[in-house]
Amino acid sequence: MAKIVECVPNFSEGRRTEVIEAIANAIKGVEGTRLLDYEYDKDHNRSVMTFVGEPESVKSAAFAACAKAAELIDLNAHSGEHPRIGATDVIPFIPISNCTMEECVELARELGNQIAEELKIPVYLYENAAVKPERRNLANIRKGQYEGLKEAVLKDPERKPDYGPASLHPTAGATVVGARMPLVAYNINLNTNDLDIAKSIAKAIRHSTGGLRYVKALGLEIKERGIVQVSMNLTNYQKTSVFRVFEMVKSEAERYGVEILGSEVVGLIPMNALVDSAEFYLRIENFDKSQVLENRLWE
Amino acid sequence: MAKIVECVPNFSEGRRTEVIEAIANAIKGVEGTRLLDYEYDKDHNRSVMTFVGEPESVKSAAFAACAKAAELIDLNAHSGEHPRIGATDVIPFIPISNCTMEECVELARELGNQIAEELKIPVYLYENAAVKPERRNLANIRKGQYEGLKEAVLKDPERKPDYGPASLHPTAGATVVGARMPLVAYNINLNTNDLDIAKSIAKAIRHSTGGLRYVKALGLEIKERGIVQVSMNLTNYQKTSVFRVFEMVKSEAERYGVEILGSEVVGLIPMNALVDSAEFYLRIENFDKSQVLENRLWE
Repeated sequence: MAKIVECVPNFSEGRRTEVIEAIANAIKGVEGTRLLDYEYDKDHNRSVMTFVGEPESVKSAAFAACAKAAELIDLNAHSGEHPRIGATDVIPFIPISNCTMEECVELARELGNQIAEELKIPVYLYENAAVKPERRNLANIRKGQYEGLKEAVLKDPERKPDYGPASLHPTAGATVVGARMPLVAYNINLNTNDLDIAKSIAKAIRHSTGGLRYVKALGLEIKERGIVQVSMNLTNYQKTSVFRVFEMVKSEAERYGVEILGSEVVGLIPMNALVDSAEFYLRIENFDKSQVLENRLWE
Repeated sequence: MAKIVECVPNFSEGRRTEVIEAIANAIKGVEGTRLLDYEYDKDHNRSVMTFVGEPESVKSAAFAACAKAAELIDLNAHSGEHPRIGATDVIPFIPISNCTMEECVELARELGNQIAEELKIPVYLYENAAVKPERRNLANIRKGQYEGLKEAVLKDPERKPDYGPASLHPTAGATVVGARMPLVAYNINLNTNDLDIAKSIAKAIRHSTGGLRYVKALGLEIKERGIVQVSMNLTNYQKTSVFRVFEMVKSEAERYGVEILGSEVVGLIPMNALVDSAEFYLRIENFDKSQVLENRLWE
């Protein structure tokens, strides 16, 4: 089965469509990758591209896009609402199929080194690819944004990049490269209009207040249906499974005499997040993902 | 999302490996198809190839394989335990992704016509592609095998092929082409050693004795584990879902105070059979299969 990696780079351009197109074309020009989607926002002055493919192709496409962005974007002339430090602001690699987080970390470090060497852009490693623990959190790296980092990197040894020159690129700034799991946006609807119940359940299941390690959760009202919802981001569906989240919300709801009406997947979800749930509920013994017929299609 | 069709043709050669290789190579030679597996059996003197791809490529590969088999296999010199009427004995098309049964029926009829026209081999349509109701069942078409059909086709208007000459090809015989759903081989293990319970449950859930429309089932002993099993073939997982079978076996077992220990998927299973089960148990509302990230890889 082929290894499939996703890459979701963010670029500091959300207004000049010819620049956005040129970056998208740089990605499309690399054989073995598929651009699934790109979005841009004028207020943020930022674009996000989503592409997939085998690891080496995805790395090549990420490099090509980064080189094109460095050629066409000047941070000194950039303004927008979203914090940023570089023309290519951040490049996460995401393991999708038959590929481990460790392989994505390796890919991030190789790309980081290549960007520093060939484009002379300093690179910071973040999330699972971080070498310095405080850099796991992107906000720490981006502190002060392009303008602030330009000064700080010269004076503060703690702001030194992981690869490349200890001064920002004169127009392209700096780039953050890393690896993370795919996000699953998953909401559960309850047959009550009592917002306090949704908030209590959210509090019980989210990591920040004592719940499951890879769950972020909020209680919300869905006014048009007269119900409430536990709205979640699952940041690692392999370690905190969708079915386990569902069962925990169900059990918490029962304590209030409330039932789950249904759930929603917002946007994309990796096949394995659903296959794992089928395995759990159908109690399938010794299941191997290579038994999924579609997995054979990329062999 | 690309349409993916599976094709599992059976050839009347299970001994001469050079012939089997030549047929496999004819399939591999068609761009856009992937040969997943091939198996052959000396006693049956028969081989089975499994390949997938987009509909037009799969049809071309099936035709190429059929032409190669007609070139290299002489039914007059063939013997084996398995009933057969042709060098290429049977060609089923199976819808896998983003593809309907109707499209596979259409594909079967196009291929049948092409085999008759270009190779002068008479073709019978079976299962979902059958035009005559009695030909849905392959056994009716294969009655008398090659030797018997050679005579019968000349005399009996009811044995006339759906396409092509009303006499068998002098060496390649006749070919059966059709469309069917993928089979899912699914077994459920019970925490008892009472074979009668497994047999009673099999009887309750299988179609032939009043149960679910697309279930074949037997009760078996698994001696090495000291348990019994309901062993099943699900012949249309879209209409008789895996989760519904699981829930019905669970409910029947409870009636005897028995529980489901686990289940097994034997061989391959289409992704959607598992995704449907996750949707059911997680109560996902308004789910669209295009939200499965892997489905985007073939777009």
